[in-house]
Amino acid sequence: MLTAAERERLCVVLVGTRNPLNIGAAARAMANFGFARLRVVHPYEPSFREARSAVGADDVLRHAGEFAGIAVAVADCALVAGTTAGEQRNPSEPLEPLELGAEHIRAQLRAGARVAILFGSEKVGLSNEDLSHCQILVRIPTEPAQPSMNLGQAVAVALYELIRDDGEAARPEASPLASAADRERMVRLLADSLAAGGAQADEARLRSLVQHQALTPQDAHAWLGLFRQILWKLKNDG
Amino acid sequence: MLTAAERERLCVVLVGTRNPLNIGAAARAMANFGFARLRVVHPYEPSFREARSAVGADDVLRHAGEFAGIAVAVADCALVAGTTAGEQRNPSEPLEPLELGAEHIRAQLRAGARVAILFGSEKVGLSNEDLSHCQILVRIPTEPAQPSMNLGQAVAVALYELIRDDGEAARPEASPLASAADRERMVRLLADSLAAGGAQADEARLRSLVQHQALTPQDAHAWLGLFRQILWKLKNDG
Repeated sequence: MLTAAERERLCVVLVGTRNPLNIGAAARAMANFGFARLRVVHPYEPSFREARSAVGADDVLRHAGEFAGIAVAVADCALVAGTTAGEQRNPSEPLEPLELGAEHIRAQLRAGARVAILFGSEKVGLSNEDLSHCQILVRIPTEPAQPSMNLGQAVAVALYELIRDDGEAARPEASPLASAADRERMVRLLADSLAAGGAQADEARLRSLVQHQALTPQDAHAWLGLFRQILWKLKNDG
Repeated sequence: MLTAAERERLCVVLVGTRNPLNIGAAARAMANFGFARLRVVHPYEPSFREARSAVGADDVLRHAGEFAGIAVAVADCALVAGTTAGEQRNPSEPLEPLELGAEHIRAQLRAGARVAILFGSEKVGLSNEDLSHCQILVRIPTEPAQPSMNLGQAVAVALYELIRDDGEAARPEASPLASAADRERMVRLLADSLAAGGAQADEARLRSLVQHQALTPQDAHAWLGLFRQILWKLKNDG
């Protein structure tokens, strides 16, 4: 169970959605379960405009934000969770069952942090580049024989799991996490340090390395300070 | 969690559905969560034929049974559960939250009984006559401001609740963590990088920064590789 203020801190982020009916269905499920913040990242343009301007489009859809990339769409979020259905594609992904991922998301919302939950496009889901922006990847437990869910249904199931009565209301608070913007600054500094050293920097790999760490805002600032010192030295010697 | 045999005993019954897309969406959610028995009660005829004969209609839909009334559709079922969203219409209804209703349904399936779960039409849901065939009425916990769910999404949420990991199965194992030796190597490399850059390194502070991170062995090795590249550059330029 989440309070209205806690739900208000969750951002549902649709990445590359093509079908306006699916954007509408996601918005409807959000309204059903008390969530209001919808963000859309490079949707198929005509379909997003069509969905947003549809007669009867509700508040969620009319107030949806449109973003040019995931980094800007989630910059104010401490926890960024990707979603997938079916089997694990890459054994190194820190894949969590939805039940467990929802616990982590609720813990951050209760700690006062903003959280983004990402849903990929109908055809391909979230790409590896998309996933490099996520700290956790949450799996909806579908069957191997028919793993792929309809987008609107996946959103409904994930949000339902977040608000269902889990009996956990009395647990201790989680530590708040650093913002995605701070993590992105770390990625930038690392990439620049490697480049200043003449090495190739694989940004998606650096990002996913940074995303794996449970950084508090204090940790992030300490790391940023360190990296800035190192980079300054590299540049002034190079 | 339900075994395949237990899932096989659940019948999803759609009553008076009008939109073929919704019948298709219900069938898809069933396949996603491992259920096979779909029964349709006096559907809007052309829409059911259209959905069943659609190109790409899956097994669930092609094998769906069509019935002239609820009584015949649920005759072989021990437990018949109706579904509703939003507020209670009639205080005398034995209304159960979905979490609790799902426990009752699972208990019957595990006991070897067949169970029917009914979903009403898009416009009016289940009528009082429909409800008179039900022993329990299960409520999906939607918001009073927007109680009415899309039919396909309601089916997905209800079936997900039936199969979600309810804590009876063991929790997934925690990820293994990197060794203290690897963490100490990270501290060493960071301290050396700062020293090579002419900065003071507070080792205890670096160590506590590294300890804060939940590093897997793979993460630790990736970070060590990065830091070695940077340190090498610092030393060879310095």
